[in-house]
Amino acid sequence: MAEVAWIAVDWGTSNLRVWAMDASGQVVDTHGSDQGMGVLDREGFETALLSLITPYLAQGRVLPVVCCGMVGSRQGWAEAAYLSTPCAPPDGQNATRVAVNDPRISVFILPGIKQISPPDVMRGEETQIAGYLAVNPDFDGVLCMPGTHTKWVHISLKEIVSFQTFMTGEMFALLSKQSVLRHCLVSSGFDQSSFDAGLSDALGRPQLVTAQLFGLRAGALVADLKPAAVRGRLSGLLIGAELSGARPYWLGQNVAIIGDPKMSDLYRKGLAAQGVDATLVDVADITLNGLKAAYESLKEQVL
Amino acid sequence: MAEVAWIAVDWGTSNLRVWAMDASGQVVDTHGSDQGMGVLDREGFETALLSLITPYLAQGRVLPVVCCGMVGSRQGWAEAAYLSTPCAPPDGQNATRVAVNDPRISVFILPGIKQISPPDVMRGEETQIAGYLAVNPDFDGVLCMPGTHTKWVHISLKEIVSFQTFMTGEMFALLSKQSVLRHCLVSSGFDQSSFDAGLSDALGRPQLVTAQLFGLRAGALVADLKPAAVRGRLSGLLIGAELSGARPYWLGQNVAIIGDPKMSDLYRKGLAAQGVDATLVDVADITLNGLKAAYESLKEQVL
Repeated sequence: MAEVAWIAVDWGTSNLRVWAMDASGQVVDTHGSDQGMGVLDREGFETALLSLITPYLAQGRVLPVVCCGMVGSRQGWAEAAYLSTPCAPPDGQNATRVAVNDPRISVFILPGIKQISPPDVMRGEETQIAGYLAVNPDFDGVLCMPGTHTKWVHISLKEIVSFQTFMTGEMFALLSKQSVLRHCLVSSGFDQSSFDAGLSDALGRPQLVTAQLFGLRAGALVADLKPAAVRGRLSGLLIGAELSGARPYWLGQNVAIIGDPKMSDLYRKGLAAQGVDATLVDVADITLNGLKAAYESLKEQVL
Repeated sequence: MAEVAWIAVDWGTSNLRVWAMDASGQVVDTHGSDQGMGVLDREGFETALLSLITPYLAQGRVLPVVCCGMVGSRQGWAEAAYLSTPCAPPDGQNATRVAVNDPRISVFILPGIKQISPPDVMRGEETQIAGYLAVNPDFDGVLCMPGTHTKWVHISLKEIVSFQTFMTGEMFALLSKQSVLRHCLVSSGFDQSSFDAGLSDALGRPQLVTAQLFGLRAGALVADLKPAAVRGRLSGLLIGAELSGARPYWLGQNVAIIGDPKMSDLYRKGLAAQGVDATLVDVADITLNGLKAAYESLKEQVL
């Protein structure tokens, strides 16, 4: 096994992922756990991290650890204060050093980014953006980042100019699992033509979305609307409403989509229906690439 | 105690309310329980009812019981098939008779109303509408019925012409209790000026509502937005989006609001900001009045 030179960490609300890296930037090993920020108190972070990386530690040397994500929030291990737009994604210089008990590690947390007006925040996506720009340094346009809280990010001259977050993913989860609509989603399946119709309806009349949501329940009761059609239309209505609101971001723009492939493809199709030919980005190493860029700048400037 | 001539029952998903009525239409007594449709299986309904009305039963005579609400849904005691718009609110002639074990009661359930296109349903509100029309027989205009699922109902010539349901109340509950926004609603309070601003923003740009919802979280994190302001603005955004979608119902119309007084007043203020002077209806006896009207027609035609 190659010698581990540093540790990359993606630490979100629900999950913890670590990569043991060698000096040339290759992954030596990787591990994950469900010890996300949401289940840890402040004292629990170091223990959770050590439980995954102890094999790489040695007496007499200090291993750098570079983290991103909700671990840097006020409820996290240590608060890494937001950068403010317009700004480049954070590099090692912007990292917050965390006080630790174990002398064999030196831990840094990358900050998130805030926007004052209109108010918005990101934590984690900024490192994906850094990873994307590390591979596509000349990108100028808009990143669409579908997820629980979908981000639309305007990038120009390697800077994040502005961004806007939509609660689409969280709304889909709440409505499909906790609302009255859950009764009409009892089986799986996803009908694409229902997605297309819902998308088109919401883009045309976004003000009717909350009525059309109840229409799914009513359609199941009085018009035998099937679960696959409900799921497709629910997704189409919510993404359609988002695309309607995000129009200033994508209209006439160069758009790249960064996210879970299945979800990204729904956004790609929605944008295609509006005449926008968006690129799907391979997200396999995107966060790791951002952490690597941060480590390189840390090495030059801090370590 | 005056002799009980019949029993009125409002039986929803969460609650059961019974009124013991004399022959002149006066309330002799009333009782409630939490034995709503949602917690009962089909065999449980008769027991739940008897547990509240046994004191009024006597051997050798049959007491009529008139019910409305989710008790008549497919998951209820017995399915009372929907009437279809356009139609008058149901009267006793439309009631479904339920098979019971106890010979001392004769149970009738009033149907809900469905609309085929666009698909929509109500169960319970139709009896409130009947109660309103019993007192205001010449009403011509629109009823706004705020609640978990707010209904807008076009009434003309004593008929329900069309209606539209918005999930506003359920969305408020889900977002304020289950979403990421719950973190910025830790204390109570309701800021009216934040409501007004949210309402105006959503009416102007309903397509931005899901972005503005996340903006509440971001505002709390980066701009010290207080819980009372978050709650006011959340309510304003959701009601504003609804008013935007319901514009064809209220624009230039005679509007009466039937619902919880606090909630109704928010709708009244929202409509007033759009130049519509809506009437607040006293809802104290409205469902009971609808059940009384149904009992009168049952007495004439069935009993």
